[in-house]
Amino acid sequence: MFREKIKVLDCTIRDGGLINNHDFDRRFVREVYKAVSRAGVDYIEMGYKNSKELFSPKEYGAWKFCDDDEIRKVTEGIESHTKISVMVDVGRVKLEDIKPCSESPVDMIRVASYVKDVDKAIFMLNHFADKGYETTVNIMAISRDQGVELDEALDQLERESKANVIYIVDSFGALYQETVEGLVKRFKKIIKSREIGFHGHNHQQLAFGNTIEAIIHDANYLDGTVYGIGRAAGNCPLELLIGFLKNPKFDIRPILDLISHELVPLRKKIEWGYIIPYAISGMMNEHPKAAMALRKSDKKENYRGFYESLMSTGLD
Amino acid sequence: MFREKIKVLDCTIRDGGLINNHDFDRRFVREVYKAVSRAGVDYIEMGYKNSKELFSPKEYGAWKFCDDDEIRKVTEGIESHTKISVMVDVGRVKLEDIKPCSESPVDMIRVASYVKDVDKAIFMLNHFADKGYETTVNIMAISRDQGVELDEALDQLERESKANVIYIVDSFGALYQETVEGLVKRFKKIIKSREIGFHGHNHQQLAFGNTIEAIIHDANYLDGTVYGIGRAAGNCPLELLIGFLKNPKFDIRPILDLISHELVPLRKKIEWGYIIPYAISGMMNEHPKAAMALRKSDKKENYRGFYESLMSTGLD
Repeated sequence: MFREKIKVLDCTIRDGGLINNHDFDRRFVREVYKAVSRAGVDYIEMGYKNSKELFSPKEYGAWKFCDDDEIRKVTEGIESHTKISVMVDVGRVKLEDIKPCSESPVDMIRVASYVKDVDKAIFMLNHFADKGYETTVNIMAISRDQGVELDEALDQLERESKANVIYIVDSFGALYQETVEGLVKRFKKIIKSREIGFHGHNHQQLAFGNTIEAIIHDANYLDGTVYGIGRAAGNCPLELLIGFLKNPKFDIRPILDLISHELVPLRKKIEWGYIIPYAISGMMNEHPKAAMALRKSDKKENYRGFYESLMSTGLD
Repeated sequence: MFREKIKVLDCTIRDGGLINNHDFDRRFVREVYKAVSRAGVDYIEMGYKNSKELFSPKEYGAWKFCDDDEIRKVTEGIESHTKISVMVDVGRVKLEDIKPCSESPVDMIRVASYVKDVDKAIFMLNHFADKGYETTVNIMAISRDQGVELDEALDQLERESKANVIYIVDSFGALYQETVEGLVKRFKKIIKSREIGFHGHNHQQLAFGNTIEAIIHDANYLDGTVYGIGRAAGNCPLELLIGFLKNPKFDIRPILDLISHELVPLRKKIEWGYIIPYAISGMMNEHPKAAMALRKSDKKENYRGFYESLMSTGLD
C-alpha cells in the first residue's frame, strides 16, 4: 500500500531552531539524530548555513551556521542511513564557505526562496549541485504568491535549475486542502522532471491534513518535525506522518521515546503549537511575526484585540 | 462564496462534558451560550438527556441530564437565535421524560447510535419527531463499522426514519480525508432526502481538515467545540470552522473572547488536545478509553509502552 518514492525529511532542529535562536545543545541534537535515524527517516535537516559576517555566533546557536565539524560532533558514532540536509536563505550564505559534498557530512542543501528571488536561487542551486550536493528549492510564502510570476518561476526552475525537488512551503499556515490540491497540480503541470515537496505549517491545525493532500496528488518529499515543533504553531508532526505512511521501513517507536523524554519537557520551556493568535494569522494569510510578538507581550491572551488589529491593518 | 445550507452546531458543553462528568457550572454555561449566540452559530448542544434511574445526579453534573428547567436557567435573559440541542444515547433515556417540543426550551434531539442499534434509533427518532423536535441520528464509531450493515442501516434511516440529518461520527479520530470523502459519498448515495452531518475527533489533528473535506463533498451539518474541547483529543475547533466558512452571519470575536477568558484558564485544569496516546489510538482505530486511562496513571508519558500494548492487543 505504500509509495516507494515518498521521502520524509525531519526538520526538528532546523524549524525548531527558529524558536530558540538555533541554540539546541549537542546532547539534544544527538538524541534527535539517533531517534530519527532509528525511525528510518530519509533526511534530517540540522539548521541553516548562514554567513557569520551577517549573523553573530554570540547571538545565535550553532545551528544557525551548521559548521561541518559541528555536524560531525553530533552524528559521529551513531549508526544511521539518514541523509543530512541544511538550509540556506537566498543572500545569506557565502558560497565559498561551502565545501564540496565529498568533503562534507552534508548530503543535501535546500535553498529557501521567495518567488521574486528565483534567479538568485537558481544560481545557488546550480552552484551546490555542481559541488555534488542533492538540492531542493523551497518556495516560501506561497499562499501570498500565486500570480503568473509563480508559473514563470516554476518554468525557469524546470528549464534552468539543477534542483532535485521543488517544494511548496505554506509559511503562513494559510492553505486549505483545496488550495494544496490546486498548487500541487499547478506545480506538476510545469515541473516535469523533478519531484514536488510539501512543507506545511500548523497554524490552523492543517499541516498534517495538507501533507496528506499533497501526498494524494503525488508530492513525494514531505517535511515533518517531532511533536510538531517549529516556528509559531509549528509543523506537520513527524509521528503522525509516519503513522499514516505504510512503508515498513519506518519505525515510530524511537520517535515516541524522543517525545516522552525530550519534547514534552522542552514544550514546558519554549512555546509552539495550537495557539489562537497563530490560528488568526493563518486565517488571515499573514506572516506569524505579529502573533509571535504578541505572545511575548503582556497582551498575549488578548485574541480579540489581535484579530481587530490585523483586520484594520488590512484596510490600509 | 458561502453555502447558505451549512449549519454549524457547537457542542462545547456536551462533548466537553465527557471530560468533567458534565459538571460545568451555570456561570460557565451561560458564558458559552452567550458567546455562541453572539457568534451567530446555528445550534448549541448542552449535554445528554440521560435517565436518572441509570445515572446518579450525585455522580454527574446537570448536563448529563439536561432538565428543561436547568436549560432555562442558563439561557434566560440572553438574546439568541441559536437553537438548542440535546443528545440521547440509545437505551439510556426514558422517552416519557421528554416533553413535547412546544413545552421545552429544546429544539433538536440528536440520537447517538451504533450501526447495530439502528432499529432502536429509528424508534426514538420518530418518537421525538412526533413530539415536534428536529432530529438527527449520529452514527458513532464509523471507522470500525463500514461493512454492508452500514448501507442497510442508511437505507433503513432513509426509508423509515424522520431524522432530518444523518451524521458521520469519527469517534476514534481515525478517519483521513480520503475516508471522509468515501463515507460522505456513500451516505449521499443512499440518503437522498436528508442532510449529511460530520462530527470529527482530533486525535490525529484532522478534525478540522476532515470537516473541510466533508463540506467539500456536501455535508451541511458540522460540529465544532470552542478551542476544540472534548473527549480525549477533543473536536474540531469552532473558531477554525467559523474562520473557514465565509458566511457573514458568523462573528468570530465573541468566540475569541470566550477562549481568552474561559477556555485557556480551563485548559490548565482539565486536559484535552493533541496528546500522543490519543494520536496512537487514532492511528490504530481504537476507542480512546485505554489512552484516557493511561493519562490518569503514573505511566502517562510512556508512549512506547502504550503503543506496544495496543499492538499486542491487536494480535489476540
